[in-house]
Amino acid sequence: MARAQADFPQSELAHFGPDTPLTLDAGVTLTPFQVAYQTYGTLNADKSNAILICHALSGDQHAANVHPVTGKPGWWETLIGPGKPIDTDRFFVIASNVLGGCLGTTGPSSINPKTGFPYGLDLPVVTIRDMVRAQAMLIDRLGIDKLLAVVGGSMGGMQVLQWAASYPERVFAAMPMAAAARHSAQNIAFHEVGRQAVMADPDWRQGRYLLEGTSPRRGLAVARMAAHITYMSDGSLHRKFGRRLQDRDGRTFSFDADFQVESYLRHQGEAFVDRFDANSYLYVTRAMDYFDLAADYGGVLANAFKGVKTRFCLVSFTSDWLFPTSDSRAIVHALNAAGAPVSFAEIESDKGHDAFLLDEPELTAITRGFLDSAARAVGIAR
Amino acid sequence: MARAQADFPQSELAHFGPDTPLTLDAGVTLTPFQVAYQTYGTLNADKSNAILICHALSGDQHAANVHPVTGKPGWWETLIGPGKPIDTDRFFVIASNVLGGCLGTTGPSSINPKTGFPYGLDLPVVTIRDMVRAQAMLIDRLGIDKLLAVVGGSMGGMQVLQWAASYPERVFAAMPMAAAARHSAQNIAFHEVGRQAVMADPDWRQGRYLLEGTSPRRGLAVARMAAHITYMSDGSLHRKFGRRLQDRDGRTFSFDADFQVESYLRHQGEAFVDRFDANSYLYVTRAMDYFDLAADYGGVLANAFKGVKTRFCLVSFTSDWLFPTSDSRAIVHALNAAGAPVSFAEIESDKGHDAFLLDEPELTAITRGFLDSAARAVGIAR
Repeated sequence: MARAQADFPQSELAHFGPDTPLTLDAGVTLTPFQVAYQTYGTLNADKSNAILICHALSGDQHAANVHPVTGKPGWWETLIGPGKPIDTDRFFVIASNVLGGCLGTTGPSSINPKTGFPYGLDLPVVTIRDMVRAQAMLIDRLGIDKLLAVVGGSMGGMQVLQWAASYPERVFAAMPMAAAARHSAQNIAFHEVGRQAVMADPDWRQGRYLLEGTSPRRGLAVARMAAHITYMSDGSLHRKFGRRLQDRDGRTFSFDADFQVESYLRHQGEAFVDRFDANSYLYVTRAMDYFDLAADYGGVLANAFKGVKTRFCLVSFTSDWLFPTSDSRAIVHALNAAGAPVSFAEIESDKGHDAFLLDEPELTAITRGFLDSAARAVGIAR
Repeated sequence: MARAQADFPQSELAHFGPDTPLTLDAGVTLTPFQVAYQTYGTLNADKSNAILICHALSGDQHAANVHPVTGKPGWWETLIGPGKPIDTDRFFVIASNVLGGCLGTTGPSSINPKTGFPYGLDLPVVTIRDMVRAQAMLIDRLGIDKLLAVVGGSMGGMQVLQWAASYPERVFAAMPMAAAARHSAQNIAFHEVGRQAVMADPDWRQGRYLLEGTSPRRGLAVARMAAHITYMSDGSLHRKFGRRLQDRDGRTFSFDADFQVESYLRHQGEAFVDRFDANSYLYVTRAMDYFDLAADYGGVLANAFKGVKTRFCLVSFTSDWLFPTSDSRAIVHALNAAGAPVSFAEIESDKGHDAFLLDEPELTAITRGFLDSAARAVGIAR
């Protein structure tokens, strides 16, 4: 019923037992727990070439390998691979599933050792900082003191920012893309709609669906549909679908998916349900909503980066209305105020928030340039 | 079970029997049917002072009186009333519930005369043009040849445009606000999410919930929550709620409504369910999705207004991302191309799409000026 290691033969698992508990922001301790991860490339002798990839809300550790559930290419193969900007011939790339996730790392579908049944809502609510704490423990386990870079988009970018704030001495370079230092009211609102859609599904069973043998498929599909619209721009939806009908003969005067955009969205909802756990969706969206980096530093974002020597490269996309450029700019201002080295690029794209996942030549070039420069600075040969 | 006249003592009802059937765009005939409406002010002797108000998706005929279900003021009392821009001391104001609606006009919750039970999904799917056809029959019934003005926002604005295209000789002045000549892919996408939320609710019962004594409250509430976000701007949500917590003590580390914006949205969902029918939500959103005025005129919007002598005043709002200014501008260009008299104002507001429903001084002034000028042109004394 619950996800077990055997379900994910491709992922490595780091187990953390009673001797290494995880103290969560919720004020409780999680133990035991595990982190599922993938690695690509080889760690060099002085362990200076490790890059940590942080995934977004609906992502996972399968950044650069065929996904074990969907059979599709890894979600960031545009950037990660031999000879690519995140060059696996040169770097040791680590991608782990976040705490609260559903692809092997401890989450609400994991077995609660106290009961022998899946946690469901008995798993404490986790935060972005908790996710990063778990990642830091994984990095310890891998024997790595300092990461050459931490890279991620959207929620992944939040983790990058948290890494730089929590463990500045362990991050040489940080690259948050399409990210924000806090979730906006509109972002929280969209997440709340998604959670309510899940929780409105009677098959959710107050979060006990794994125990009761049901699955809140329809609620999770609706949540994903609503979210998916926010990942695209008005322009990209228009370019991709416009008002084109499924059937050339015209309107059916029914509630079938007459328009191509409707059937596309329905497909997105359906496909998501096959690879994602509904309770994980609640936990991970909640972690994003709770994220407000400045709040942990007296309300002043610059204080989060005081004395930080990490070099930053921020990227935003012109048509991203979920994490607009103004969010990235606020981070740049804070980094400037803190005296941290930072570069920033707003990339012209009509592809909306999801542009960071797509083949954007300017993104490719910027990532390559930034990581190449970082590698040269620490003396990694080409 | 189904809505009956007695439930809406405040509304007048116009019955249309077998002698006056309504031929719908779906290619079928609706008969009998009825239109529920409110009037304010007095029709003058030459019947030249009538203004028709067209309501939006979630609106109804209670534009300027206390709502019989919610007990709240009419939805457009900012503009309609004695001495107000739509001056009931001077004009005869008519507001009718749209076809497919749920406050007295024939809709899916009305009794199907063929079965004696509520229509549910057996009501033919209706279009904006069908809604306007029913309104024109109501205006006939009231003995009015020509309307001084037709005014409406959002879906109401679509009806205004359709009026001018279908019955140009019957409309002296037209005022579509925050509207579009066609629904965009993004708009259709958001509507599809809402419909899927309703239809995912097991209590929807394939649309037969009235017969089966259930109510898809949770699905409809989720639909409304998602839609409500689109009616506001990021800025207005931020100004109104920001990241403020319900409880000053902080995060609860749960899935309760920690943030004010969450409890606000939940309330919006709940309140809507008390006054709106779930199937009507499907029908009315579908009508909007199907709206593409140019498509009925060879794909050229200007052709819809060829030879039209109606004077137009269009209004858009800077922060409206659902029906952005570019949509209004496209209509203005078409009207210019058709040689129709048109004025256009983009109003600076951070209140998003819903700005047309709010107390916006510039909107008040523009509406007053436009209608005053129209009244003078047809010789209505102040």
